Amino acid sequence: MTASSFVAGNWTADSDAVFRSWDPVENSAIAEYREASVATVGAALQKAERASHAFSAHTPEERAAFLRQIAVEILHLGDELIQTTRQETGLPEARLINERGRTCGQLRAFADLIEDGSWVQACIDSAKHDRLPLPKPDVRSMLVPLGPVAVFAASNFPFAFGCLGGDTASAFAAGNPVVAKAHPGHPATSILLTKAISRAISQCGLPDGSFALLQGQNHELGSALVAHPFTAAVGFTGSLGGGRALMDRAAGRPAPIPVFAEMGSINPVFIMPDALDRRGEAIANDLGASIALGAGQFCTNPGLIVTLRDVFIEPLAKALALQPTGYMLNPDIAARLHQALESRSAMSQLEVVAGGIGSSMSLQPRNTLFKVDAEDFIAMPQLQEEVFGPASLLVECGSVDQMLDVAAHLHGNLTATIHTDNHTSIEVIDLLQCLSNIAGRILLNGYPTGVEVCPAMQHGGPYPASSTAATTSVGTAAITRFCKRIAFQDCPDSLLPPELQDANPCRIWRQVDGEPTRTAITRSE
Amino acid sequence: MTASSFVAGNWTADSDAVFRSWDPVENSAIAEYREASVATVGAALQKAERASHAFSAHTPEERAAFLRQIAVEILHLGDELIQTTRQETGLPEARLINERGRTCGQLRAFADLIEDGSWVQACIDSAKHDRLPLPKPDVRSMLVPLGPVAVFAASNFPFAFGCLGGDTASAFAAGNPVVAKAHPGHPATSILLTKAISRAISQCGLPDGSFALLQGQNHELGSALVAHPFTAAVGFTGSLGGGRALMDRAAGRPAPIPVFAEMGSINPVFIMPDALDRRGEAIANDLGASIALGAGQFCTNPGLIVTLRDVFIEPLAKALALQPTGYMLNPDIAARLHQALESRSAMSQLEVVAGGIGSSMSLQPRNTLFKVDAEDFIAMPQLQEEVFGPASLLVECGSVDQMLDVAAHLHGNLTATIHTDNHTSIEVIDLLQCLSNIAGRILLNGYPTGVEVCPAMQHGGPYPASSTAATTSVGTAAITRFCKRIAFQDCPDSLLPPELQDANPCRIWRQVDGEPTRTAITRSE
Repeated sequence: MTASSFVAGNWTADSDAVFRSWDPVENSAIAEYREASVATVGAALQKAERASHAFSAHTPEERAAFLRQIAVEILHLGDELIQTTRQETGLPEARLINERGRTCGQLRAFADLIEDGSWVQACIDSAKHDRLPLPKPDVRSMLVPLGPVAVFAASNFPFAFGCLGGDTASAFAAGNPVVAKAHPGHPATSILLTKAISRAISQCGLPDGSFALLQGQNHELGSALVAHPFTAAVGFTGSLGGGRALMDRAAGRPAPIPVFAEMGSINPVFIMPDALDRRGEAIANDLGASIALGAGQFCTNPGLIVTLRDVFIEPLAKALALQPTGYMLNPDIAARLHQALESRSAMSQLEVVAGGIGSSMSLQPRNTLFKVDAEDFIAMPQLQEEVFGPASLLVECGSVDQMLDVAAHLHGNLTATIHTDNHTSIEVIDLLQCLSNIAGRILLNGYPTGVEVCPAMQHGGPYPASSTAATTSVGTAAITRFCKRIAFQDCPDSLLPPELQDANPCRIWRQVDGEPTRTAITRSE
Repeated sequence: MTASSFVAGNWTADSDAVFRSWDPVENSAIAEYREASVATVGAALQKAERASHAFSAHTPEERAAFLRQIAVEILHLGDELIQTTRQETGLPEARLINERGRTCGQLRAFADLIEDGSWVQACIDSAKHDRLPLPKPDVRSMLVPLGPVAVFAASNFPFAFGCLGGDTASAFAAGNPVVAKAHPGHPATSILLTKAISRAISQCGLPDGSFALLQGQNHELGSALVAHPFTAAVGFTGSLGGGRALMDRAAGRPAPIPVFAEMGSINPVFIMPDALDRRGEAIANDLGASIALGAGQFCTNPGLIVTLRDVFIEPLAKALALQPTGYMLNPDIAARLHQALESRSAMSQLEVVAGGIGSSMSLQPRNTLFKVDAEDFIAMPQLQEEVFGPASLLVECGSVDQMLDVAAHLHGNLTATIHTDNHTSIEVIDLLQCLSNIAGRILLNGYPTGVEVCPAMQHGGPYPASSTAATTSVGTAAITRFCKRIAFQDCPDSLLPPELQDANPCRIWRQVDGEPTRTAITRSE
């Protein structure tokens, strides 16, 4: 049995519990792994805590080189990584190659960000020694690392949200060691990625406590990771149930810590009458592809379509039928989807208009569309629970007013989309206002799947979409989650971090006495 | 009996429970007030939720005018406010006049901030239609208001952290209605301040749900306020016990909300041998004044002094004896202080070197100093609990190494201070590094009391000093606590908020394609 966890530069497997990986396409077991014990969690955090100072003391350039080296080492894993992950997840090779590119791209984006350095939000207020009644002190603040970050990897993006995904990249970029809890769906993938990062750690001369990998499917393992006193913050991508359990665990600690959990959503898409008239068929085709993409296993999957009357149903049902079917990532996820489809099929208010429940043994579900009347939808909040898979629900409205009424009843979502060309109509302005209350990202005439990694991206949203509507888990702004803010008052240059020194040796943008500038400052005597 | 709560423009008092205000100097009751009921909480939140959109839809200039008008109306209350608060708190007139100035000053600082507009962190990433394999979308993000904010006012700053204090000012500035829970220690003060804001609301044409005041001392009232589904965030200044109770309540909601709680701390002051030698007496005098200021009822009160051997004890004890004694804010706080002093006096490891326990009936405690050996201090984490009042603990160390050891064992604090002129010594650099892990603000050769209201200020720190080490409750950066982040993808100008429109009509600083700029942008077709 393979030792699947990695602590302080050593592979380890010390518990009696065992879990196995599964090939969804062949629908058969691949291999067995021994789980990490709760004692291993402690060992990993001890090492991480001790590595914290050394890790954050490396210059931004050194940390940027480390992030870039991780990307190099991931690519060095070559086709072995792609084939291993393909077998463990059932995701097609082309998708995995793209996702690997995205993962390396985000590591490089964070490297660029910290090399630039301005992300630390350096802020300087000069002293005024002659102010009355009291002199004004010199106050300077910036973001600094929080400490060891626990990262819970997702099932659906084995690379981009896996143990070396966005949460790990942003935690490293901010200057923190990471203890990653791999998703049990792809253990061999996580082992390969850990080999890559282990090489990068050696090559860059970082402490071996900088990264640890914990594997297992026992919930106690994750709970112990969140509960450990040295864990300073948590990053999580996954289900609402899983994320909320970690939030509760973190809130119940003697010293609570922040949990940044991205917990999925139903991503409503509103198709206004003008768009329906002008390009209904084109929207149906694109939306069908967005629903079926990756067997619908995206947190931005469009799970709710709100439109007028029933004219959109036929083209969308047709489009869905033309889309290829994919494999669910593992038997658990397939079983949960089957259960959700069964439960919805049994509801008298819902009608299956495409696809439907297949065999409970199949890991390859049909692309499925339900429909429901707007009034019933509003009366049934349980229809706002995410169905993870290639399924969507169309809400049939009698009027644009009723579409607005549906919008007003929505819970928190990662995204919300409007299709229209009437960019100045009062109704559209009202709808957008309403959706701004419930979604982290608003798209016009687009599709929510495919989240751009860029500084302005917001991937998060009001609960239950995420734990904190103020932060994002995609894009470079994700770095601020794993920081705290610290101020220095009347501190001489020799004791200040370079980012706050008079001469601005890092040449970063700073806010000095209220204005952004890159110039050096002179202290008044 | 006075109706003491204010909801939707009306004074109300609907519960059977009664509480009374107290004159600490006369040590006698002033008046009785009827408490607000839990039903009133619901009414206030209903009104606030309905006011949310209208309130945030007012332009930044209009909201700035509102903040300035509140300051005007506070000053219009004139001497009646000062005398009322003096009677309810026992704080001296001069201090209250200063605090009123600070409170008006912070309202104006937030007005300036939102008029400038750049605080919204507008970020724009341009589209690249010809990017391969997929076009890059246009993504723009900014901070937007969260919704109704519950503010829990503090006892010790009836103006600056009262119902119109920093939390209320920053929540308003961010665009949110406020439901304030007054501290039961000064009900007449809160009524006067509410009259001021009520006038400002009328004059500025804001909805009457923009502000509500709830009064009472029943914990159920506060709990109901945090639990209400329309409450979007909580601001709190007070004790660890009170803050943690609200944090737990908020975390246990069906939809958890953020709590920004500033819960006090012991604010360690390290006096290095060189400073002790060169200016020990001057430091003793200034530190004595800082400990006794406002009867020690500051969250930044220096409750821990760490120094070499015993040479500092005599000058500090002398300085404390020369400081005037003040009044505790109310009998409850006086009783808790008495209890803490009693408990510490009973510890064999502690020695009273100045002041000591007075009468359990007195509201005017003696300025008190305990001392303890470093080893005992490290072994007794209970000595890190805040003693709210004019009391401090001196930790006697045998060496500078032991001072560093004490620093390494400290819990989270709002501030930490070092007195030294050796700005390049390894020991000082190590100490500062160590204190950076546990404090939100580091001061060199200063005193932690007196927190400057400026953009760079950090008033917060690792738990238990505050609930979130990433945010501040003093200074203009406090505004971001009551915001969420939202992104717009491929959104036409007519549907974007002005801050994100191409022409930059607000003339704010924005990050465009990675660089700060105030210039307009042109979209590629």
